[in-house]
Amino acid sequence: MKHLLPALLLFPCVAVAQRPAPTPPENLVQYAHPLVGTAKMGHTYPGATVPFGAVQLSPDTDTLSYEQNGKYNPEIYSYCAGYQYKDPTIVGFSHTHFSGTGHSDLGDFLVMPTTGPLQLNPGTADKPQSGYRSAYSHATEVAEPAYYKVRLADHNILAELTATTRVGIHQYTFPQADESHLILDLMAGIYNYPGKNTWTFVRVENDSLVTGYRQTNGWGRTRTVYFALSFSKPFKQYGSRNYDQKQPYRGFWGRFDQAHNWPDLAGHQLRLHFDFGPTTSGQQIKLKLALSPVSTAGARANLRAEAPGWNFADYKRQGQAQWQQELSKITIRSPRRVDKENFYTAMYHAFTGTTIYQDVDGQYRGLDQNNHTAKDFTNYTTFSLWDTYRALHPLYNLVQPRRNADMVQSMLAHFDQSAEHMLPVWSHYANENWCMIGYHSVPVVCEAIVLGNAPFDQNKALDACATTARQRWYDGLGLYIDKGYVPEDKNGASVSKTLEYAFDDYCIAQAAKKLGRPDLEQEFRQRATNWQNVYDARIGFMRPRLADGSFRPKFDVLTTSDPAYIEGNAWNYSLYVPHDPAALIAKMGGSPRFVPHLDSLFTMNLPDKFFAETEDITRDGIIGNYVHGNEPAHHAAYLYNWTDQPWKTQPRIRMILNKMYHQGPDGLGGNDDCGQMSAWYIFSALGFYPVAPSSGEYALGSPAVHGAVLQVGQGKTFTVSVKNQSDKNVYVQSARLNGKLLTRPFLPVSEVLQGGTLEFVMGGRAAK
Amino acid sequence: MKHLLPALLLFPCVAVAQRPAPTPPENLVQYAHPLVGTAKMGHTYPGATVPFGAVQLSPDTDTLSYEQNGKYNPEIYSYCAGYQYKDPTIVGFSHTHFSGTGHSDLGDFLVMPTTGPLQLNPGTADKPQSGYRSAYSHATEVAEPAYYKVRLADHNILAELTATTRVGIHQYTFPQADESHLILDLMAGIYNYPGKNTWTFVRVENDSLVTGYRQTNGWGRTRTVYFALSFSKPFKQYGSRNYDQKQPYRGFWGRFDQAHNWPDLAGHQLRLHFDFGPTTSGQQIKLKLALSPVSTAGARANLRAEAPGWNFADYKRQGQAQWQQELSKITIRSPRRVDKENFYTAMYHAFTGTTIYQDVDGQYRGLDQNNHTAKDFTNYTTFSLWDTYRALHPLYNLVQPRRNADMVQSMLAHFDQSAEHMLPVWSHYANENWCMIGYHSVPVVCEAIVLGNAPFDQNKALDACATTARQRWYDGLGLYIDKGYVPEDKNGASVSKTLEYAFDDYCIAQAAKKLGRPDLEQEFRQRATNWQNVYDARIGFMRPRLADGSFRPKFDVLTTSDPAYIEGNAWNYSLYVPHDPAALIAKMGGSPRFVPHLDSLFTMNLPDKFFAETEDITRDGIIGNYVHGNEPAHHAAYLYNWTDQPWKTQPRIRMILNKMYHQGPDGLGGNDDCGQMSAWYIFSALGFYPVAPSSGEYALGSPAVHGAVLQVGQGKTFTVSVKNQSDKNVYVQSARLNGKLLTRPFLPVSEVLQGGTLEFVMGGRAAK
Repeated sequence: MKHLLPALLLFPCVAVAQRPAPTPPENLVQYAHPLVGTAKMGHTYPGATVPFGAVQLSPDTDTLSYEQNGKYNPEIYSYCAGYQYKDPTIVGFSHTHFSGTGHSDLGDFLVMPTTGPLQLNPGTADKPQSGYRSAYSHATEVAEPAYYKVRLADHNILAELTATTRVGIHQYTFPQADESHLILDLMAGIYNYPGKNTWTFVRVENDSLVTGYRQTNGWGRTRTVYFALSFSKPFKQYGSRNYDQKQPYRGFWGRFDQAHNWPDLAGHQLRLHFDFGPTTSGQQIKLKLALSPVSTAGARANLRAEAPGWNFADYKRQGQAQWQQELSKITIRSPRRVDKENFYTAMYHAFTGTTIYQDVDGQYRGLDQNNHTAKDFTNYTTFSLWDTYRALHPLYNLVQPRRNADMVQSMLAHFDQSAEHMLPVWSHYANENWCMIGYHSVPVVCEAIVLGNAPFDQNKALDACATTARQRWYDGLGLYIDKGYVPEDKNGASVSKTLEYAFDDYCIAQAAKKLGRPDLEQEFRQRATNWQNVYDARIGFMRPRLADGSFRPKFDVLTTSDPAYIEGNAWNYSLYVPHDPAALIAKMGGSPRFVPHLDSLFTMNLPDKFFAETEDITRDGIIGNYVHGNEPAHHAAYLYNWTDQPWKTQPRIRMILNKMYHQGPDGLGGNDDCGQMSAWYIFSALGFYPVAPSSGEYALGSPAVHGAVLQVGQGKTFTVSVKNQSDKNVYVQSARLNGKLLTRPFLPVSEVLQGGTLEFVMGGRAAK
Repeated sequence: MKHLLPALLLFPCVAVAQRPAPTPPENLVQYAHPLVGTAKMGHTYPGATVPFGAVQLSPDTDTLSYEQNGKYNPEIYSYCAGYQYKDPTIVGFSHTHFSGTGHSDLGDFLVMPTTGPLQLNPGTADKPQSGYRSAYSHATEVAEPAYYKVRLADHNILAELTATTRVGIHQYTFPQADESHLILDLMAGIYNYPGKNTWTFVRVENDSLVTGYRQTNGWGRTRTVYFALSFSKPFKQYGSRNYDQKQPYRGFWGRFDQAHNWPDLAGHQLRLHFDFGPTTSGQQIKLKLALSPVSTAGARANLRAEAPGWNFADYKRQGQAQWQQELSKITIRSPRRVDKENFYTAMYHAFTGTTIYQDVDGQYRGLDQNNHTAKDFTNYTTFSLWDTYRALHPLYNLVQPRRNADMVQSMLAHFDQSAEHMLPVWSHYANENWCMIGYHSVPVVCEAIVLGNAPFDQNKALDACATTARQRWYDGLGLYIDKGYVPEDKNGASVSKTLEYAFDDYCIAQAAKKLGRPDLEQEFRQRATNWQNVYDARIGFMRPRLADGSFRPKFDVLTTSDPAYIEGNAWNYSLYVPHDPAALIAKMGGSPRFVPHLDSLFTMNLPDKFFAETEDITRDGIIGNYVHGNEPAHHAAYLYNWTDQPWKTQPRIRMILNKMYHQGPDGLGGNDDCGQMSAWYIFSALGFYPVAPSSGEYALGSPAVHGAVLQVGQGKTFTVSVKNQSDKNVYVQSARLNGKLLTRPFLPVSEVLQGGTLEFVMGGRAAK
């Protein structure tokens, strides 16, 4: 430092002296709270992950089985992310978790540090001392982006977790203890059941490195995850127990003591322990567990590349720096800390929904179970597309364009590998789960084409969309193509399918138009009108129709258990024509009849009986009959924009933002669904929303922020400024895009992507 | 042809005209009979394979389970190779088979063509019509190297099989039939039981290509084989049945008819059928099924590389040409066809015992379950080393030196990948089975070093041997190192282990000597004397010794169920000091006492009760108390060479050759053990035998051939000529190596490998 002083004196920094020092960027990481959504039905996890990280290292609080007495166990539903805030014990820390899903899997490689006599069973929540699990108190718990900390009361161990993209990093601070152990439980898992492990394999490579894999037949039917686990301190000894009831063929193995220090294990039901002997107070044992979708060799390479050292604080700092960078894709102004907390918690969840799925060298396991190398893109997985096509992928297109293009390429690779020649429906870890309905990769692929964020063979991509949309065997699609609707007597969820197919078809038409393929455009433009075929004009609702053309007589617009609909009742689904609200409104009698109809959605009192019908809806996620906790009506509040009273959207949006999102573990009104709920928040708080991805337009709402700057790619920024903002001033008085007054309540997405400014002026009364 | 005539006239071929045209090489393939050993306990398979082929495409005649009522089913033992000659039905044709083993696995990808209504169950042997299996008659059966043919009576289908190294090729000639099917049974397997499949995976890529894999927890604990199956004719439709009792998580899959034309299947218990509609008489459907140890992509590449076309006759011709080439490594003269049949059947079995285990691009699955690429060598598997170190690998060193060096490199790669840091014991398909005792890779590696057939880092290889031999945890080895013997009260099979460890240690000493590493040589030269520590001089037998140094009181030299010995009784094992017979004989009282002792081995009458004690020994494989059906005494008849009556070896050898090997399905007196029994035949018929591999010497016997030419590598030949040969002239009168009279009954292997001549003169009486 001393040597610098003369230099500074010799070259006084005049330019700096003449203007004020730049404000250091605001620490946005402080606002994102991973614990939000960990109670009730948010289904998020509180543990450590980096943006889009392949590792989600997080505590699991129970070990329920997916089946009890041979039947689905409904209790398991609360444990989609492995953690429930109400639970009094932590079983251990596992390395993979979905964020906000309504079905689950994962929970791979559960690790637990313990003191005292070795216990290989997890024990039970009411008697944690009966096993390796531990009681804990939320008072000792800290959850930040890329950092999680908790004190394990029963063992008096301070557990800290952080992560890189592919490596989970553990730091355990031990008390003085006679014995210390690390448990590696390969039987553990989320949505587990005793037959779920098709195989597990472990090698103790030396006294501080363990490799292996877990192969499961779960929600992902054929899923394998490989690991390499490095210890900061050599273990003194180790052992395992194989709980397999049957191990035939192993006659000659009987010569060996495989329970102790045997380095080569495999079976369906393995638990391992690594023993470190006595510890002194404050002694730390650190672990680095790298994942790979390809091989243990890949996991070791990932470990070397991403986590060569042992400085936990550095990894935490790097992880939080990554979060700072990604959260900075949108900086907002707001006088209230809680608004920033809600916003950046939503950003945090939006950027954990999909995950990187390849080794550092680009290798990943494909749908065909072969290893592939991603060339010119990064391969992603966890595509909960029925949810995320709506707002999450549009958000990515806006502030994560490179990643969204990579995700589209990942979907196209999936198509190339698909035996069914389909784009993904709900895919994770080289599996198609066929969960939910529609072919909602199509809007994602097509929006990327329409917006020009498509660095790949666009015609081939469009062909993949068309091929997907023409698979006659798929879920009523042949009937839909022939009849223009899915007949309910032939195929369930027929109304939902017809409506969603029609929207997806619209997206193909839009992309075909962009690429100048009129035949394709015409075919799918026509198909996009099929929503009309399930509209019963006599009653003004989308109604199940039978193969003979008649509408099904039995019909209740409010019930959530009508098999013609999925995750939504007829009332909500009847609003689902996102690509042509004007036509829908016209059919429904135009603004005079539609506006009060839509008003009633938010104001009616849904009878209690409907809440008992389905596990997925509680009062928390509902406003009147508007179900924000599920997705089909996510666009509904924006529909006023197509009526003669567009301002009515604005207070609705502000109300939903206020009611459905808040801080605290129960801060989400329903499953976050891999970030779709959060993406809704982000768009709506900014003042606009992608009602129909691929349309090229956002619909205006009412901004909740006081201002925002969006990084829209290639160094461009898009600034939202809001004048006269307040909780009462929810009505937009005027909006100017790049200085030009908007005369319609819509924004062209292309102009937003070019950077520029959007200026809202707010007021307390509707600007009719 | 017409155009050639003037050219021939213009350039008359004077040289050819002056000497007789060369004799075309004799067709040796005609003499090799794959059916030999398929009855009783030979455990060979009759199907189609090329030399060292990765595919062994062969009929399986029953579907017994490895377990019945939760216990090992002893009946299964007959089905090590899937086929028993006595059986009246064929279940189907599967692609992998061990040759001659005494434990089993494999039987992957069973295919069966059928006519008539679809049957997905195999049915039973007594009611073949109850399933897809078929009765057959041996009268319709032809088994040749690389070719198998049989008529499936129930379906009136002529089945023909051939193979390339990695592709099984099927040709099915159908009758006129209303329906024709091909069954692909992924539940089937050898040594199968319902839980054996850890996973199977199938993709119907298009109407004539299917890929997938089978992963099993069998004898190989973690074994995966991938396939690509191509049909000569597109199937009209296909279907499957998943017999898994439980398939949770598959809720959304219920929308799809996965039983019919569903291209993407996985589970534990799958059977598929491919339907071709009506057939006309004589219509052929051909299949090519390629294997890979790595991936379905690898299997497809193997298919393209090795079997691009559909000409079955060409593949058969190529396969038999390969056999002709490999069988020609030794050409023999003999006036009797049956002698050639015995000899070339032995050659055939010797060259099917170990198998190539890598894709055409060199990739293979390693012991660590990672994919590796064999650089500068070809990777092999199926190492039944307790058997094959004795004569099979020495035979390979002699006439397959390149392959033997590749096998040694495969073993060294195994060592590098071994979590236990051990050379293979009994390994197949990336698994260590730990079957039998000893560390008998060591003699194979060390003999290669001693003989200079070692194109690899020889010191590293020797270190691997020493590391293996110093693993204190291994099977009594720590005790052996400390005490000089394995104490029977601490570790079973203690006498067998002590004797075999001592021999293996000798081999390390020999290699250390060759490489000039005196410390290592001294250490293991000392260990090689440990056989003395279990020799009880009071009774003249190798006897179980306890940790306190005393000999175990209870002792019966004849019983085959003494736990201190394995696959041999004390009488036979007491002769097992192959590396120092002279010292053994001296201990046993010298020639005067040893010669009659050894005589009695062949002449005594073993009480019947011993045959009931173990499944592995029948009267067929025994002469007196000499058990040729198991390996420990394979060198015994040669021990006379170290006495003052060496000629006594000669009639014994001729007797064993005559008694233990003949034509017909029951032509082998015991398990062929991956070619060890056959290698014994080959050496002994040539007139010499490797009593102690790594010693650098063969012991002389009595040639059964009338002459032989051996291709000993690098274009060199070693010629055995035999004068006055006859069934009665079993005594060697003289033997000259390269013209020089042998004064000891031993041959230096190094001189044989340099090429040259060995001239026997035979006579009817011992040349004392």
